[in-house]
Amino acid sequence: MLERRSQVVLGLDPDPARLWPGSEEEGEDAPGGVPERTAAAVERHCRAAIAAAGPACVAVKLQLACFERLGRPGWSVLETVAAAARADGLLVIADGKRGDVPVTARAYAQALVGQTPGPFGPVPGLGADAFTANPLLGRDALEPLTEAAAAAGAGCFCLVRTSNPGAAALQDRPAPEAPFHERLAELVCGLGETSIAQCGLSSVGAVTGATRPDLLARLRELMPRAVFLLPGVGAQGGEVDALRAAFEPHPAAGLVTASRSIVDAHSAGAADPATAARAAAEELRQATWALAG
Amino acid sequence: MLERRSQVVLGLDPDPARLWPGSEEEGEDAPGGVPERTAAAVERHCRAAIAAAGPACVAVKLQLACFERLGRPGWSVLETVAAAARADGLLVIADGKRGDVPVTARAYAQALVGQTPGPFGPVPGLGADAFTANPLLGRDALEPLTEAAAAAGAGCFCLVRTSNPGAAALQDRPAPEAPFHERLAELVCGLGETSIAQCGLSSVGAVTGATRPDLLARLRELMPRAVFLLPGVGAQGGEVDALRAAFEPHPAAGLVTASRSIVDAHSAGAADPATAARAAAEELRQATWALAG
Repeated sequence: MLERRSQVVLGLDPDPARLWPGSEEEGEDAPGGVPERTAAAVERHCRAAIAAAGPACVAVKLQLACFERLGRPGWSVLETVAAAARADGLLVIADGKRGDVPVTARAYAQALVGQTPGPFGPVPGLGADAFTANPLLGRDALEPLTEAAAAAGAGCFCLVRTSNPGAAALQDRPAPEAPFHERLAELVCGLGETSIAQCGLSSVGAVTGATRPDLLARLRELMPRAVFLLPGVGAQGGEVDALRAAFEPHPAAGLVTASRSIVDAHSAGAADPATAARAAAEELRQATWALAG
Repeated sequence: MLERRSQVVLGLDPDPARLWPGSEEEGEDAPGGVPERTAAAVERHCRAAIAAAGPACVAVKLQLACFERLGRPGWSVLETVAAAARADGLLVIADGKRGDVPVTARAYAQALVGQTPGPFGPVPGLGADAFTANPLLGRDALEPLTEAAAAAGAGCFCLVRTSNPGAAALQDRPAPEAPFHERLAELVCGLGETSIAQCGLSSVGAVTGATRPDLLARLRELMPRAVFLLPGVGAQGGEVDALRAAFEPHPAAGLVTASRSIVDAHSAGAADPATAARAAAEELRQATWALAG
């Protein structure tokens, strides 16, 4: 992260109806039916985006929904794209916002950062470096995820304050003594206490939307050792300059994730997709790195 | 549902380390590596459980985590098991507790109850009859899911009060005027108003854990038209007799979902897995049906 001098996360949310030009050719030659051909085109698109924007980034964030909607071949491409990103020196964040009762949370942990024992030997999971988790079910449901992450040397980002407009009515709702998102922040802080790395940061992080930068100082106070994953810059209107509080403990204490503002950068101007994506990612890298300095 | 005289949902959370005897033979003959062979054994197990317990049930609830952890072949088996359940006249509930910002929620809706447009034509989704959703992100994030469900003639069950012990600290937390789960219940009620079927029930339902039956009367008051999906009977300690409030509006207004208490019923006694599962499902069917009468 420090050696890449970047806190930028390339979000990949591939939409088969809006792939980069040239991606479809890959699908035309692929064997199989519509799902297989679509998945092949999506893979080409993701590989091209990684090649273009990856050098300015520290990680890719793979939006699991966008692979799941392609069914079985979509899951296959998810595995392939994760491997391709890793081969390019990027961390892989599996963005699925999973959360379930403890026994099921253990299954998600096996899928994302572990392996599943069985009669023929263990089935390997996705091998993600980090993943996102939904904390609504409470501490007992989060622990299997945070413990598995720590055991795998991976990170778990819990939703604390998401970036969408509708978040306010639930997450900012005043509880007797503080807003609901502060209660989630306390949970994240508590879960992370047992897994603090040498740099002082915990393996349990928080998703804190960049669309409400005014909350970041208080959230940083409540979660001094958590890495903040900051979605909402770009297409959703968040601005990098307002995010300084996230980076206060350490340059690695914040990760700015951008999807459409990098991958769709070409739609605004004259450059080809790869050139536009590379420029957008590099611009974001510089702005964020300067902030943390 | 009425013609099957059952409100019982067979939960399938297949654990490769605890499959029914005979399942492994299927995997031994399967082509491919450990994931493929494990997935084949899981498929055999699920088919056997459906054949045994299905006749006493109205639906299967497929725990997506347990298929995802087998990677690509796991997703393939998920599709196959869903089709097998449907062929046996059972509804399919995809239990993934998905929830994300609006653009991503639309992708999950495509994956579960819709299709994904692309350059080679639409990619079909799982075709579930219903799915579970996590409401933490708020109304704008739920709407793409509930709207897609209504358009597909499917149901969406939002988490309102989950069955695990840790739920209390967040979902029962007093907000100024009422507990947090009541706020979620109001959200579910509001989202369901536009999609009410002839029987008076809405396509937007609620997950209301059977481990806190004391909350059901109030939740029914707040969500008079929602179908309640009731996990927590059996292994988690919930009792059917306490669930009457769920069924007050209509016999179809409640669905009792049981996984381990049916599929693992043989571990308590002398019967083989299929016989024990069938008996456990039938016993639960009778107890629930009597309650709703």
